[in-house]
Amino acid sequence: MALTVVGSVALDTVETPAGKNADGLGGAATFFSLAASHYTQVHLVGVVGEDFPQEHVDLLSAKGINIEGLERAEGKTFRWSGRYHDDINLRDTLDTQLNVFENFQPKLPEAAKNAKYLFLGNIHPALQLEVLRQSRAEFVALDTMNIWIHNTRSELEEILAKVDCIIINDEEVFDLTGERNIVRGARKIQDMGPSIIAPKKGEHGCLLFDGNKIFSAPAFPMADVIDPTGAGDTFAGGFMGYIAQQDSLDFDTLKKAVIHGSVLASYTCEEFGADRIALVGQDEIDTRYEAFVDLSRF
Amino acid sequence: MALTVVGSVALDTVETPAGKNADGLGGAATFFSLAASHYTQVHLVGVVGEDFPQEHVDLLSAKGINIEGLERAEGKTFRWSGRYHDDINLRDTLDTQLNVFENFQPKLPEAAKNAKYLFLGNIHPALQLEVLRQSRAEFVALDTMNIWIHNTRSELEEILAKVDCIIINDEEVFDLTGERNIVRGARKIQDMGPSIIAPKKGEHGCLLFDGNKIFSAPAFPMADVIDPTGAGDTFAGGFMGYIAQQDSLDFDTLKKAVIHGSVLASYTCEEFGADRIALVGQDEIDTRYEAFVDLSRF
Repeated sequence: MALTVVGSVALDTVETPAGKNADGLGGAATFFSLAASHYTQVHLVGVVGEDFPQEHVDLLSAKGINIEGLERAEGKTFRWSGRYHDDINLRDTLDTQLNVFENFQPKLPEAAKNAKYLFLGNIHPALQLEVLRQSRAEFVALDTMNIWIHNTRSELEEILAKVDCIIINDEEVFDLTGERNIVRGARKIQDMGPSIIAPKKGEHGCLLFDGNKIFSAPAFPMADVIDPTGAGDTFAGGFMGYIAQQDSLDFDTLKKAVIHGSVLASYTCEEFGADRIALVGQDEIDTRYEAFVDLSRF
Repeated sequence: MALTVVGSVALDTVETPAGKNADGLGGAATFFSLAASHYTQVHLVGVVGEDFPQEHVDLLSAKGINIEGLERAEGKTFRWSGRYHDDINLRDTLDTQLNVFENFQPKLPEAAKNAKYLFLGNIHPALQLEVLRQSRAEFVALDTMNIWIHNTRSELEEILAKVDCIIINDEEVFDLTGERNIVRGARKIQDMGPSIIAPKKGEHGCLLFDGNKIFSAPAFPMADVIDPTGAGDTFAGGFMGYIAQQDSLDFDTLKKAVIHGSVLASYTCEEFGADRIALVGQDEIDTRYEAFVDLSRF
């Protein structure tokens, strides 16, 4: 079934211990779309500026992503720049230029409205509410971040009450609930609305809460992480893409969706930018899925 | 097969957000022994002072632990006092009184020397070497900590070259190797000697490296951690106890050993002190083992 994502499309300049990549294709909705495109029809809703390279548009199109909702506005594309530490789990944001993203007013084309599955990327919760108003989706997941949690609490609570699933970092569970204990934090979020919580823990994997059921997925052990930018968005794309492909919300499907998200996220970490996740082959996905089976079966 | 452990036996005073427990039975070798006693014959080698309550000796005996090597010396028992933060992963040591443990000179009784499996608890590596000289064990694992890593490096490297397995925290992998990446850190430790590395990650579970093979075990998600003191030592006891019981080192056995260690460690966290792990029933172990299967199977 079709899947719509609304969020950022960006040009990222990233430094990691492995090197530097300037003005690479980035943004949450980009990584999400490319990951999900391996599983299902994706409708991408976002905005880029006049400087957005045509080759990136071509890549999205070549992956079969519907970009009717990718608006090209006057001005420059959203740019983010960051530097990772030797401990690759830590990074500093060096520069953020919202540019055309600052006045982003999501407008869903008809096909995007009709998608059964919807992912609300990390944008202002008032915009997430507006997207939800336009959409006819039956299953809705969202991402958020600390600035929305702290600055737009009431709007965030309003959207949380209306969605089925939230995919956030473990640190954001703490920001949102005040709970350092992830189980108690997840329970508090469930009380706010979504029954499905997927707290991402980076190199420690991901948990999945669905009602009273819990699943724990490992991360893929990697000796060389080149660039983790977009790994969390890739995870969300693989997770939602698999669910939309299977068109099922039973717990076995959700668990496999977590593994597919983790598989794709591991590939994103292997290279700078979004090419690796765009071009990863089905055979590679299958092979690493089996590696996750071996990694966690006893 | 029999299993010998050498390490601390202590009286712990612990404060956590759940409360306070004064002068409870503690020490690495204590938690290790009690955990391992659920699987195999354990020989405990350690030292206590004249103030060590007889009820603790009786508990160890009642669990079938051979305490012939538990020396009672003139003076006071090793005492440790600590306070945990609201984030239960963080703790401050308030006081350490080594007392009789300061001059501990391990002497293995004949039966302890003959045990096929040996665990060298977290003591000075020169003492670990002395224990190894006395022992006829065929499989040896060790624990260590930051002070030995930084202050007695050459002796630590000497013992590392002679053991088969090391069970340490992920932070100690960094202290020992300078590697924040756990895969590269484990490879560096393998180059120092042990082929089996079990880096414990607290609430994030545990990894297992055996040659080129890797296994990732989840932690048991707990809404209420009462007192995590001794959980790592309990893990090591369950891990080594299961291996000694099965008398096998194949990877499937090692993986199940990690889960048994994790099962017991989760019980240790449920109450203050060592009673919970001493008295946990076989039915409880089996039930939680199955919970780990459900938690990680997809």
